[in-house]
Amino acid sequence: MKDRIAVGLIGFGTVGTGVAKVLTTNAGVIRQRLGVPLALVKVADLDLATDRGITLPPRVLTANAREVIDDPAIEIVIELIGGYDPAKRFLLEAMAQGKHVVTANKALLAVHGEELFEAAARAGVDIGFEASVCGGVPILRALTEGLAANRLLSLYGIVNGTSNYILTKMTEAGRPFDEVLKEAQTAGYAEADPTFDVQGIDAAHKLSILMNLAFGTPVNFKDVYVEGITSIAPMDIAYATEFGYTIKLLAIAKLHSETQGVAIGESERSASPTRARGTVEDGASWRTGGGRVQTGASEPIPMGGRAPAELEARVHPTMIASESPIARVDGVYNAIQVTGDAVGDVMLYGKGAGSFPTASAVVSDVIDIARNILKGTVRRVPPCAFQPDQRRPLRIRPIAEISSLYYLRFMVLDRPGVLSQLSGILGKHDISISSVLQRGRKVGQTVPVVLTTHTAVERNVQAALREIAAMPFVSAPTTLIRIEGEDR
Amino acid sequence: MKDRIAVGLIGFGTVGTGVAKVLTTNAGVIRQRLGVPLALVKVADLDLATDRGITLPPRVLTANAREVIDDPAIEIVIELIGGYDPAKRFLLEAMAQGKHVVTANKALLAVHGEELFEAAARAGVDIGFEASVCGGVPILRALTEGLAANRLLSLYGIVNGTSNYILTKMTEAGRPFDEVLKEAQTAGYAEADPTFDVQGIDAAHKLSILMNLAFGTPVNFKDVYVEGITSIAPMDIAYATEFGYTIKLLAIAKLHSETQGVAIGESERSASPTRARGTVEDGASWRTGGGRVQTGASEPIPMGGRAPAELEARVHPTMIASESPIARVDGVYNAIQVTGDAVGDVMLYGKGAGSFPTASAVVSDVIDIARNILKGTVRRVPPCAFQPDQRRPLRIRPIAEISSLYYLRFMVLDRPGVLSQLSGILGKHDISISSVLQRGRKVGQTVPVVLTTHTAVERNVQAALREIAAMPFVSAPTTLIRIEGEDR
Repeated sequence: MKDRIAVGLIGFGTVGTGVAKVLTTNAGVIRQRLGVPLALVKVADLDLATDRGITLPPRVLTANAREVIDDPAIEIVIELIGGYDPAKRFLLEAMAQGKHVVTANKALLAVHGEELFEAAARAGVDIGFEASVCGGVPILRALTEGLAANRLLSLYGIVNGTSNYILTKMTEAGRPFDEVLKEAQTAGYAEADPTFDVQGIDAAHKLSILMNLAFGTPVNFKDVYVEGITSIAPMDIAYATEFGYTIKLLAIAKLHSETQGVAIGESERSASPTRARGTVEDGASWRTGGGRVQTGASEPIPMGGRAPAELEARVHPTMIASESPIARVDGVYNAIQVTGDAVGDVMLYGKGAGSFPTASAVVSDVIDIARNILKGTVRRVPPCAFQPDQRRPLRIRPIAEISSLYYLRFMVLDRPGVLSQLSGILGKHDISISSVLQRGRKVGQTVPVVLTTHTAVERNVQAALREIAAMPFVSAPTTLIRIEGEDR
Repeated sequence: MKDRIAVGLIGFGTVGTGVAKVLTTNAGVIRQRLGVPLALVKVADLDLATDRGITLPPRVLTANAREVIDDPAIEIVIELIGGYDPAKRFLLEAMAQGKHVVTANKALLAVHGEELFEAAARAGVDIGFEASVCGGVPILRALTEGLAANRLLSLYGIVNGTSNYILTKMTEAGRPFDEVLKEAQTAGYAEADPTFDVQGIDAAHKLSILMNLAFGTPVNFKDVYVEGITSIAPMDIAYATEFGYTIKLLAIAKLHSETQGVAIGESERSASPTRARGTVEDGASWRTGGGRVQTGASEPIPMGGRAPAELEARVHPTMIASESPIARVDGVYNAIQVTGDAVGDVMLYGKGAGSFPTASAVVSDVIDIARNILKGTVRRVPPCAFQPDQRRPLRIRPIAEISSLYYLRFMVLDRPGVLSQLSGILGKHDISISSVLQRGRKVGQTVPVVLTTHTAVERNVQAALREIAAMPFVSAPTTLIRIEGEDR
């Protein structure tokens, strides 16, 4: 038995400092779990001057990352410098030397994930990245292990704390985006350059990582449809409230496939599935709806059924029922709701960022890898949940092809016949109206006409909006916000 | 590489049927994760006649559990018959034959867990029991792996769906317990004999399992303080609402120790802990409050600091702030909120029972063990999260010694001086009143006097209640409900 496992850290910033403190403060409990201690033997950062509230022995600190990567004693390298380069190079070099790696770098994984996963497979090392999504919330481990029995059908996430904080404040106080953003920057909840957070880019990075694990398919972040929260107006938040909705920046993934899984949504105590089919050793059969399906022995259920499976992958402001659990996730908290065919809905909730919550995920990954090292095993769970040769690219459905409910706010001159013309154009494009709200009549002035639709196809909605934009009574661009929920 | 892993199932009831259906329906996705299929080769149940909506080949079914236990091909045995005997015997026999086991049997684990864990250690096999707590919610894996970097400080759980369903209905409709219980029984949400659910026994079983994993200590269910929901009156629910509280049957565990972990509750973007201390390779030091702590190399932080650590372990109706996430967990859903010193608060939420959610956990455990088998490893994570030789019994603090906020409802004859006498007795016992509610004055009749206290010691509260019970103006027993939250 080894008497310790040596760990090296590259990046001694906010999260790196948290990792060093968790490794030291919780050395006792970590040793009780592992049987041997984790030793932080080398920490590399260009800035060795800043006081981080923790004093490391001089020979642990270095300004040269190579001293971590090349140290033969170090078995696990933690990368916490962020960005694409040199982070990627450091990870590749460490893996090439047979070292396991742990990273929180979501941008890097979302863009160069496949390259890193292949390098890990080639080198035969583990790569941990729980901290890259939702800070301390162990969502990746839930997707790869805790829910491994499920065919995963969808996931909805509030995965960016900054934008959720801003939307929460806008909703509570009815105040405009710019004002709340400035406050958030002052309070340290938003970066000086908030682009990644408020434009949905960070959320899209995380969604592509989540989808990779949930659906066994490589998803590059460039294939994710992205809209940020910068154009959300207090007026739309107020209307949402009136309709019983809350606006959240949601990361959404859905599987479309004719293969049906175990029935979900059944009565709690009933064991009779209403839609399912299956196979068991030597040809078992079980009912699906009314009929019977007989399948061959050990024949795996084809993913995708008749039509090839497709995925939706999108990040945008979304109206969701205010009473739903995820609508109630406020401030800097993150949450992800996953639906599996067996488990139904599961939600995980916690702090999505910050030094210690992120360090919790990083160090838990280190412990996981240390457990492998101590047992002489490696790559027990493939980094993307599916065996590398079992992963297959699925088509990402373009946004024009999705179906959704829509909230539309038109700014129109208030004169007779406007509503009739609006609804006429919508009807022509196969869009049926669910509810309309029009108030404060000021003939000849601009007023909002707000409506929600039944399920419609995005392409049709966009075509209708283009046609409506050309109408003489329209005095400002129309606001479109997608609604997730039942078509009532 | 093996070409399949053979699984045997003992117990073909509601959950067993769900397991068989998940294994067959999701055979494809399970194979994509594992690389090889899981084959359900033997299913034992005394009842082979009932139509379960799935047809297994005749040679798979047997009425004799020994055919599962003794089958040399079977590597993993799933026990789903429930109860203490013969479930325990079957598990012990299967392990003695070198088979890994998976069970959902919370009552058995809560009472005979240590014996089973020792048997697994002796036999060198894995024992999976994720399904024993909160159905499909992967909470045990979160405690043992996803949050492994943390010193866990507390957990609060809604872990019994039946009692939560009843309390939710009572709260929504203002209706009495007996009426709602009958309805729940008719709807299949409560058993004909609901004792285990409504008396808190099932919740205490689950709490003892959770604590075992969270705190590295054996906790027998007999050491858990238990109160059920049978005496909750609609009146108390209405008063709770008025105070801003919701009543839930909570399973509560808290660690009391002078050893402090990584600071939690710090500002999201700040990396400066306010209370912490630690050690790192070769004697690092870092600040705790104002001073500096220098510790020796590799010295583990002593668990317990100066005073030995103690645990609270209790299940009882609890008032919690209505706006807290866990107060909003309604109906048959379960949720557990865990607080770790690094991660802060994390909540997991999902269906706590039912055929398919429970099967999700069972089959995920089977996949976990299969991954070990395929990698030639075993017992990678100890079943109780801590290494067996690192677990130590901690004292469970008797209920008389706990501190809490209290809700007290006195039924008194409405006459002058009563409130003064009540508060006099409370004050004498060191109990200070936070708020009082008294309404509907009908002189000479019985009226409720409701009050909440600041933090008080349970022993003092009980002594005061005994004294008050003897007063001539008291016309019915006093209702006591503990409140979890900040002392405002």
